[in-house]
Amino acid sequence: MNKLICGAYAVLLTPFAGGKPDLSAYADQIARLNRTGIKGYTVNGSTGEFVCMSLNEQMSLTDTAAERAAAGKGLVVSACTACAADTLRLARHAHSAGAKAVLVCPPYYFTHTQEQIRDYFLTVAECSPVPVLLYNIPFFTQEIAVDTVLSLIGHENIAGIKDSSANMKRLMHFVYAAKGKNFSVLTGTDDILFPALAAGCDGSMTAFASVFPDDVCAIYDFMDLKQEEKARAVQERLLPLLRKADALPFPKGYKLAMQEASGIAFGDKEDE
Amino acid sequence: MNKLICGAYAVLLTPFAGGKPDLSAYADQIARLNRTGIKGYTVNGSTGEFVCMSLNEQMSLTDTAAERAAAGKGLVVSACTACAADTLRLARHAHSAGAKAVLVCPPYYFTHTQEQIRDYFLTVAECSPVPVLLYNIPFFTQEIAVDTVLSLIGHENIAGIKDSSANMKRLMHFVYAAKGKNFSVLTGTDDILFPALAAGCDGSMTAFASVFPDDVCAIYDFMDLKQEEKARAVQERLLPLLRKADALPFPKGYKLAMQEASGIAFGDKEDE
Amino acid sequence: MNKLICGAYAVLLTPFAGGKPDLSAYADQIARLNRTGIKGYTVNGSTGEFVCMSLNEQMSLTDTAAERAAAGKGLVVSACTACAADTLRLARHAHSAGAKAVLVCPPYYFTHTQEQIRDYFLTVAECSPVPVLLYNIPFFTQEIAVDTVLSLIGHENIAGIKDSSANMKRLMHFVYAAKGKNFSVLTGTDDILFPALAAGCDGSMTAFASVFPDDVCAIYDFMDLKQEEKARAVQERLLPLLRKADALPFPKGYKLAMQEASGIAFGDKEDE
Amino acid sequence: MNKLICGAYAVLLTPFAGGKPDLSAYADQIARLNRTGIKGYTVNGSTGEFVCMSLNEQMSLTDTAAERAAAGKGLVVSACTACAADTLRLARHAHSAGAKAVLVCPPYYFTHTQEQIRDYFLTVAECSPVPVLLYNIPFFTQEIAVDTVLSLIGHENIAGIKDSSANMKRLMHFVYAAKGKNFSVLTGTDDILFPALAAGCDGSMTAFASVFPDDVCAIYDFMDLKQEEKARAVQERLLPLLRKADALPFPKGYKLAMQEASGIAFGDKEDE
Repeated sequence: MNKLICGAYAVLLTPFAGGKPDLSAYADQIARLNRTGIKGYTVNGSTGEFVCMSLNEQMSLTDTAAERAAAGKGLVVSACTACAADTLRLARHAHSAGAKAVLVCPPYYFTHTQEQIRDYFLTVAECSPVPVLLYNIPFFTQEIAVDTVLSLIGHENIAGIKDSSANMKRLMHFVYAAKGKNFSVLTGTDDILFPALAAGCDGSMTAFASVFPDDVCAIYDFMDLKQEEKARAVQERLLPLLRKADALPFPKGYKLAMQEASGIAFGDKEDE
Repeated sequence: MNKLICGAYAVLLTPFAGGKPDLSAYADQIARLNRTGIKGYTVNGSTGEFVCMSLNEQMSLTDTAAERAAAGKGLVVSACTACAADTLRLARHAHSAGAKAVLVCPPYYFTHTQEQIRDYFLTVAECSPVPVLLYNIPFFTQEIAVDTVLSLIGHENIAGIKDSSANMKRLMHFVYAAKGKNFSVLTGTDDILFPALAAGCDGSMTAFASVFPDDVCAIYDFMDLKQEEKARAVQERLLPLLRKADALPFPKGYKLAMQEASGIAFGDKEDE
Repeated sequence: MNKLICGAYAVLLTPFAGGKPDLSAYADQIARLNRTGIKGYTVNGSTGEFVCMSLNEQMSLTDTAAERAAAGKGLVVSACTACAADTLRLARHAHSAGAKAVLVCPPYYFTHTQEQIRDYFLTVAECSPVPVLLYNIPFFTQEIAVDTVLSLIGHENIAGIKDSSANMKRLMHFVYAAKGKNFSVLTGTDDILFPALAAGCDGSMTAFASVFPDDVCAIYDFMDLKQEEKARAVQERLLPLLRKADALPFPKGYKLAMQEASGIAFGDKEDE
Repeated sequence: MNKLICGAYAVLLTPFAGGKPDLSAYADQIARLNRTGIKGYTVNGSTGEFVCMSLNEQMSLTDTAAERAAAGKGLVVSACTACAADTLRLARHAHSAGAKAVLVCPPYYFTHTQEQIRDYFLTVAECSPVPVLLYNIPFFTQEIAVDTVLSLIGHENIAGIKDSSANMKRLMHFVYAAKGKNFSVLTGTDDILFPALAAGCDGSMTAFASVFPDDVCAIYDFMDLKQEEKARAVQERLLPLLRKADALPFPKGYKLAMQEASGIAFGDKEDE
């Protein structure tokens, strides 16, 4: 079974200058990643601070990523909003930019029952011109319950899930249910890359893949070579760095780590 | 002590047509309310679905409200976003439109400690050209803890709180702490108008004030006349209507009630 | 309609000595309250630390309360446990001790759906020899949803609810639904006695009724006399004392306030 | 570093008959497990329904387990209560019965700050005659925050943690921080045994180790032999059985599975 999304995807961070996305620094970030084994890019994810940008700003970043991504790098575009109409607007633009999939969280701010969340994904999946990845991120929006996810596996326009809960029980049951199906199970948690791959996940979409792409790729490479001990050693090296990044208000710690690792300026929207 | 915001404010609903705010129906809504005893209007509140509109769309509604509000009706503009820069952009526009205050919730989506929430309000209050009303709406964003609120009472550019938790213990302590201070305590819950006023709240900002303005004003008028039994009777009449409105996904039930009461079309953004 | 439980009930605190309930100090507490206008006593409530006592210890306190309560003081016994069998054991003993009702929270520790919570109350109500009061205390156990409560109003062996959420929207809808029914709506929050009575609640079950019985009774008396301003003034006097009691780990602050007010020693179980 | 608790511990289920623990069926359960590779037994865990038993009943099960456990099987006794005094009473009894450690959750029912939870564990650890295992079970009691756990690693009488959150990010950081320290990191989630061991956990304490001891031991054995694929295959076989067990109100599904697997009657406390 060939799954649509596999391997290490890098969630791009968004550099700001003068309160607006800095497209030039963004391009530099992509150029740096083009030279690595990273499989693809996720544009406007949570760590990319989509929630602080207009739809137009988000689309300009998508366009930049589409132009600058090296051949063969997959493009996934976050289409996370508070209502289906806005999500579909982003999905149509992502399609025109050549995205492989859009990443969609439950509508944020307003609260919904699991039935409403399920209906939302069905509506979006039915109307989106690109396949939909479910995005479970219970720290920021409502959880997509395990049963809701399981009921959506097999839908022809739902291509997988990025699960950022770090809950391995969820991942285990998703991997099990997705066997032989075109449904990718991806973790969104850098701290658990190694055990998630050991457990059978298809890949990951994380911020440290943008910051430390070689380390993240090394974990995948060692797993492919059945050198689990070496994969675990790389994972371990990342753990204290992740604790440090998590100690600041999200996603500041990740941007500082990025600035240090890349030499590219990653200003905040609030800086002026 | 003359408080900045007192009495019954109506949270305006947002009619959509073709996926965009319908400014003409919005103006009709205001014209209907101009003929009532409602003290003022809250533009782009939660029930007004700000979270489904761009900043520009929100500003066009603010402009419409400013043009159409009858003389003497106070204007409060919601400046609820996920980051201080966007909130301040809305606040500056609200100021230029003549708003008395902006309503600001804790930044949504990302999570924050109470200390970060306090710092956020201090930053916004320091930079906003209009006074800030705290907006506690724990169903949709993180709670502003009682201690955080109490620590902000007395700040010269923080004019009060709209508390939509329905938690009367919170309201009691806010009313107590705000005695003799220029800090308005307002409930955001239509179901508790009567006991909130009995408890000493300065006013309310609610959706039913837009839908059933005469009933909401009647509660205030009877309270002023010390006719508590009559106030309670009006409140009771609203309760089953509120249950009905709450039974649908928020804020659909409120928009249907509005359409029925006003005869104005209140389409959803998703309708097309 | 004559409701089973009305007016100010005092939730008795539990004095410990040598790690065991101090029945003699408990009797002193009751003697002090017998001389007041308090309508009745709640034995082994949350503030009474039932969760730190064996069923046998709880029963010994019930027996003491039954012996020492003055004629006319109603007795309500908490039968809060993690399973129906234990709750019913306490209910049978409460019946033998002459209790008017038992107070039952959703089973704690394990989690349940609202349907399971509803079934639990139906099971307990069916088997209990005394009427059941629902106990909603969402800080310590799962919430009893509004719809669950509404579906239980009218059951012949369910006599009301003690709601300690401080959520006035809940109380409003319970009062409305209970009109003309033998279902008492009681608040468990000392901070909101005045607005809860204004809103039509039938009474209260609170700890400050044990500590400051005359003040709590004064609020009721002034409400009966339609002297709302005086009731509000007494309520206000209690607010800073409640903040002080709440500042310590629950229920230590209430026991210290009690010790000061009564002169009776209210030791903790941990003291030795 | 020799850690105190390693390998597969079986959380014993509690059979009830006539509303009381059935010591004879309990002994049968242990006899069945004595013949397996299970490393030890956990008495009165959550799945063992301690919360529905008196301290004396819990002690009788501890005594039975101590008498019936085969030589070499380690004994861990849950001492989970709502207050330190009761927990220490169980700890002293566990010590007299020869337990290697006691398992202690944050005090349930009342809520506490992380600082209070930390103080609680320090108090218990200081006074307990046997080493303490932290028990994180956020579905039933408050979470022990990662920082709280990290601050307790290294305490001479705190021997590890049983973490039942299924949160692999927590486990990763605990494993990392416990390197070279006498602090065991154990998962309490049957669904994630394989990835938890891959990630470096020292063992597990789970209910399926009681129900399907040979499968659980097989996962450990294959991991020791570096046959990860075989370990994963066994894990996968358990997943649909776990979904089935989780579909019933906890822990009914586990007791039914046990009854089927063992032929021993595992009645509920409520059965009569």
